[in-house]
Amino acid sequence: MDEIVTAGLLVIGDEILSGRTKDKNIGYIAEYLTNIGIDLSEVRVVPDVEEEIVDALNALRQRYTYVFTTGGIGPTHDDITADAVAKAFGVPIDYDERIVSLMRARFTDTDLNEARMRMARVPRGADLVANSVSKVPGFWIGNVIVMAGVPQIMHSMLDAAAPKLKTGRKMLSETIHAGMREGDIGTPLAEIARAHKDVMIGSYPFSNGGLPDTNLVVRSRDPKALADAKTAVETMLERLRAHSAAKG
Amino acid sequence: MDEIVTAGLLVIGDEILSGRTKDKNIGYIAEYLTNIGIDLSEVRVVPDVEEEIVDALNALRQRYTYVFTTGGIGPTHDDITADAVAKAFGVPIDYDERIVSLMRARFTDTDLNEARMRMARVPRGADLVANSVSKVPGFWIGNVIVMAGVPQIMHSMLDAAAPKLKTGRKMLSETIHAGMREGDIGTPLAEIARAHKDVMIGSYPFSNGGLPDTNLVVRSRDPKALADAKTAVETMLERLRAHSAAKG
Repeated sequence: MDEIVTAGLLVIGDEILSGRTKDKNIGYIAEYLTNIGIDLSEVRVVPDVEEEIVDALNALRQRYTYVFTTGGIGPTHDDITADAVAKAFGVPIDYDERIVSLMRARFTDTDLNEARMRMARVPRGADLVANSVSKVPGFWIGNVIVMAGVPQIMHSMLDAAAPKLKTGRKMLSETIHAGMREGDIGTPLAEIARAHKDVMIGSYPFSNGGLPDTNLVVRSRDPKALADAKTAVETMLERLRAHSAAKG
Repeated sequence: MDEIVTAGLLVIGDEILSGRTKDKNIGYIAEYLTNIGIDLSEVRVVPDVEEEIVDALNALRQRYTYVFTTGGIGPTHDDITADAVAKAFGVPIDYDERIVSLMRARFTDTDLNEARMRMARVPRGADLVANSVSKVPGFWIGNVIVMAGVPQIMHSMLDAAAPKLKTGRKMLSETIHAGMREGDIGTPLAEIARAHKDVMIGSYPFSNGGLPDTNLVVRSRDPKALADAKTAVETMLERLRAHSAAKG
């Protein structure tokens, strides 16, 4: 339980890189994994090019506990993720009888054409990842979980995979609204960061009704360290506010 | 003008990987670059960790014509992008007199504290990238353009950098609304893709008021090749519709 569990995410698709489709999966998966105690450590977006997918997948799967992929598992010629994953693992790819059965139950013989049958091809040795939306599953091989790119289907597959994932000690976080400009906080905040090496402190400027404002986010796996750092940040902000008020 | 100009994008920030902040920059930059004739070829998202930024930057800048970065150039201790870029290029980082002057014009002496002064540090030899929103500039060194993570500021910096970018022959695209399920199109579409190797054909399923539907996107730098492939796709769709109507 104290182990740190990490993940990489590989988003596959020309449509994301051309800007035609705006990705909504990165943020969803990032938040989902954080909430179950898995640290998303890196994301890559690559085009529908087999060599690019294979290279990125091999880089990520050696570095992180898990790799999630989205996109490229549909019925058309540009859906090449399953082939690329098989190639990355150096295993053959075949029609999977479990998926063929699922598809026979869902589609008529006419509808079960060559294109749709492509979706039944998975790398040898893969487990299936259920899809409660459109039924045709994703798959899981080694430490790689292969999911659809359509958000609603991806959500279903992530829900199906999640209970089987090893999870680590959850990253806890506290957000402290500063009510002041980032540049006014930076110097004392750096001192706090130096004094609390066991927590991560992030500073995120935003426009608050047109006025510059900042959220400070303190993160740690240790509740005590988190609380201490939060108190230090709050005390610092009170001091700055008092100083600012005294100046009038 | 016939040269293909490529780009990598490096998104820097723990807040994207934790899911706390949902990235809006990838889609914006993807669309922007496509529109000016630069192919976004890869995106990576990495945490606020110097070694990760350096490694990703060095991988990307050797592969693509340009690399754009977003995030990590503010006034707080977690803003380490400028230092990481200097390290990647093996050059020193110093306070830049041009930026210090800009900041003296914008901030009072009291406001120009240690934290804000961090924003005046750029790798030696860098050019500045103007920021019409909050004035403190990004920078450009070698083939790397370093921009803010706050979308509005990034937009301004991208506008400032764009006229100086080398651009290639623009990728053209046509979207054809199929009005049918992806699996019904996949087999003939693959034949068209094989017969039109000089175009890229993407198939994107979507839910049309609850009914499965598909957009087909044909892309090419050659208008004639694009038009030919578009006609082939439209003829194929008409044939499928006629067949479907004949079946009643």
